[in-house]
Amino acid sequence: MQIAIGLYEKMTALDAMGPYAVLSQLPDAEVVLCAERAGRLSDDNGLLHLEVEAGFDDVSTPDILLVPGGFITRTMAHEGEPIVEWIRAAHPHTTFTTSVCTGALLLGAAGVLDGLEATTHWSAYGELESFGATAIPERVVRRGKVITGAGVSAGIDMALTLVGITHGGVVAEAIQLGIEYDPQPPFDSGSPSKASAEVRELVTAVMGHD
Amino acid sequence: MQIAIGLYEKMTALDAMGPYAVLSQLPDAEVVLCAERAGRLSDDNGLLHLEVEAGFDDVSTPDILLVPGGFITRTMAHEGEPIVEWIRAAHPHTTFTTSVCTGALLLGAAGVLDGLEATTHWSAYGELESFGATAIPERVVRRGKVITGAGVSAGIDMALTLVGITHGGVVAEAIQLGIEYDPQPPFDSGSPSKASAEVRELVTAVMGHD
Repeated sequence: MQIAIGLYEKMTALDAMGPYAVLSQLPDAEVVLCAERAGRLSDDNGLLHLEVEAGFDDVSTPDILLVPGGFITRTMAHEGEPIVEWIRAAHPHTTFTTSVCTGALLLGAAGVLDGLEATTHWSAYGELESFGATAIPERVVRRGKVITGAGVSAGIDMALTLVGITHGGVVAEAIQLGIEYDPQPPFDSGSPSKASAEVRELVTAVMGHD
Repeated sequence: MQIAIGLYEKMTALDAMGPYAVLSQLPDAEVVLCAERAGRLSDDNGLLHLEVEAGFDDVSTPDILLVPGGFITRTMAHEGEPIVEWIRAAHPHTTFTTSVCTGALLLGAAGVLDGLEATTHWSAYGELESFGATAIPERVVRRGKVITGAGVSAGIDMALTLVGITHGGVVAEAIQLGIEYDPQPPFDSGSPSKASAEVRELVTAVMGHD
């Protein structure tokens, strides 16, 4: 089983690194971090620099395809963008095509979400629906072989859900225990419905909204 | 405010990337990823390669020091190891000295935890206590200016706790909403007390135990 995590300049690192922490523990899977071309790329903060060893051409038919999000997706999500064309070409051959956060906009631009229910970061439901999807405010949405996760940290839940499907509950639970994923957030403001109006307004002012 | 995240060859990436996702959102903090020397290092899977731009010497007096974990800490946690000496020299000057997972063993080797209660990955309580600490099975443990987090994914909870202390609840809650940290694990096996005996034995066989 080959799992390709498609990266790009200015992605949000945790979107990729959460699922990577889960999927890299599978004993029988090859996880490949790939990008338009091998070489250096930096995250959305410009602080984290990765050396990617595989280009999209090296991983053209992954069993599982995963794309992280980032603000930059709002301008990348169109035909002709290398990662969009990679998704479009690979998707018919995958077992699962998956995204975290606004990675869903890249799936949308590749035509993967047309007529489908899906999720993304809560601030990007409008953009998601511009690709013919119906946005659902759930943590993880599976429709057939397409699995989308909500914002950033939801990639961990998405990946554990995926492993539960591909490898069964015991393997998923073992990985959960291995990464001690027993979340205990010290605050309870992780979704717009739970956050205070003050916090919602603060974040919306920075991130934009529908 | 300067926040230094100290990296090393074979660290576990999510241990660093969880807190990084939180701390990099602080508007008034400089987050520096650093290592023994600038250059390339790879994670414990050998799949993720980072280009680190700062050496420990470039970040000798950070306000907040954070170290991630990894299996390799069990052999690194001794005097003379560069990251241990960096922690030892920096700790007297920090506002907070913090760790995720078995990063606590590096704090221990630097003498930071002697006589203190702390936490680490559940499989490493014995090693932690060899440094004079008392291991506590809690998600995040704060004792004075030393904050330790449990295994791998606990770094997100640890970092939000830290931001709540340094910047107040509204800023921490805004970051939580920004990364949509509303965890909904599809399974409930994130700690040894919650996992089934089958899952516990499976993971213990791979990771070792006390």
